[in-house]
Amino acid sequence: MILLHDYWRSSASYRVRIALELKQIAYERHDIALLEGLQRAPEHLARNPQGFVPTLEIDGAVLTQSLAIIDYLDATRPDPPLVPRDPLARSHVLAQALVIAADIHPVDNLRVMKRLQSQFGADQAARDDWYRHWIYEGFDALERMAGDGPFLGGEAPNLADICLVPQMYNARRLEMDLAVYPKLVAADAAAAAVPEIAAAHPDRVRPTA
Amino acid sequence: MILLHDYWRSSASYRVRIALELKQIAYERHDIALLEGLQRAPEHLARNPQGFVPTLEIDGAVLTQSLAIIDYLDATRPDPPLVPRDPLARSHVLAQALVIAADIHPVDNLRVMKRLQSQFGADQAARDDWYRHWIYEGFDALERMAGDGPFLGGEAPNLADICLVPQMYNARRLEMDLAVYPKLVAADAAAAAVPEIAAAHPDRVRPTA
Repeated sequence: MILLHDYWRSSASYRVRIALELKQIAYERHDIALLEGLQRAPEHLARNPQGFVPTLEIDGAVLTQSLAIIDYLDATRPDPPLVPRDPLARSHVLAQALVIAADIHPVDNLRVMKRLQSQFGADQAARDDWYRHWIYEGFDALERMAGDGPFLGGEAPNLADICLVPQMYNARRLEMDLAVYPKLVAADAAAAAVPEIAAAHPDRVRPTA
Repeated sequence: MILLHDYWRSSASYRVRIALELKQIAYERHDIALLEGLQRAPEHLARNPQGFVPTLEIDGAVLTQSLAIIDYLDATRPDPPLVPRDPLARSHVLAQALVIAADIHPVDNLRVMKRLQSQFGADQAARDDWYRHWIYEGFDALERMAGDGPFLGGEAPNLADICLVPQMYNARRLEMDLAVYPKLVAADAAAAAVPEIAAAHPDRVRPTA
């Protein structure tokens, strides 16, 4: 059995769900309730020393870090490929993905929000300003790194789109003005029309109260 | 000619220098003086829409994002390999690298420090506390993700070490207590003894006043 430890609204978890769906890999989910602090429980820290989601149990191994998990899925279940094989195209897609996965998402993560509150007394409005600032800065660059579509990654959805879709979801939650990013908006719309990507949406996995 | 746009004390630039040295690729350097804001100059933004270093001009292309650059170098100049070929070993090394490259470094970057100052009035001591906090949190996990050495990546230095060495350099600048991370300290010492890694040290490329 392939078991994904995730949280419905975690961006990095959402990425892995998209990858699993695109590759049509059957899996089960185990919710880690981040807001209740269950990521710090000993049994989760034994799986993931960072206390993060996602964590994927697969092929007898326990994998962490969404991009490292997706790399493994691509190496062991290559159809459809999620990163181009050509070295230059591959580097470009990785760079697009890292603009989000390294330079936006970790700076806006829940743990950073909590630290802004505890160290600087940042209220919700200040935290939202912070959150939006890094998305705008990253998207400004990413819009210029986008090609001719229809997907951010090119002709088919790949790792760039896998990172884009959850970040666009976050941007909408923060009621950001996305009209200034026509290429990103178009790529996100193209991705949303792919049934496998739609199946990974947070609303599809949100726990019922 | 292979041209690296970098800054002597940038962690991500330091990573790419290590990779180039390990692969014995001849290159020239072009300093981008971050403290003077030259990363925002139009000619640099044309190379790198994020206004970041490193940026590598190679094989007629312009590459951004240190991990994407190193992936390209590994694909086109495979000797010595910087990421294992076995999917599981590869995923583990990528996860180690991403603990630093995604979850420590971007949260402690110069632009984040500036934002802490401008948005929250954070003074040097508060910024240093922030900086150390994320290194400690990441290193706590990385120490538990380390194997039996001698390098973080295993028998030979690889992407995990390429990310570790610059982060350890930063930790020492911030006068952090590293004795609690014996595996990381040992891996860093093993890396420092490799001439190619030593050749990439910031002190070797620091501009003279």
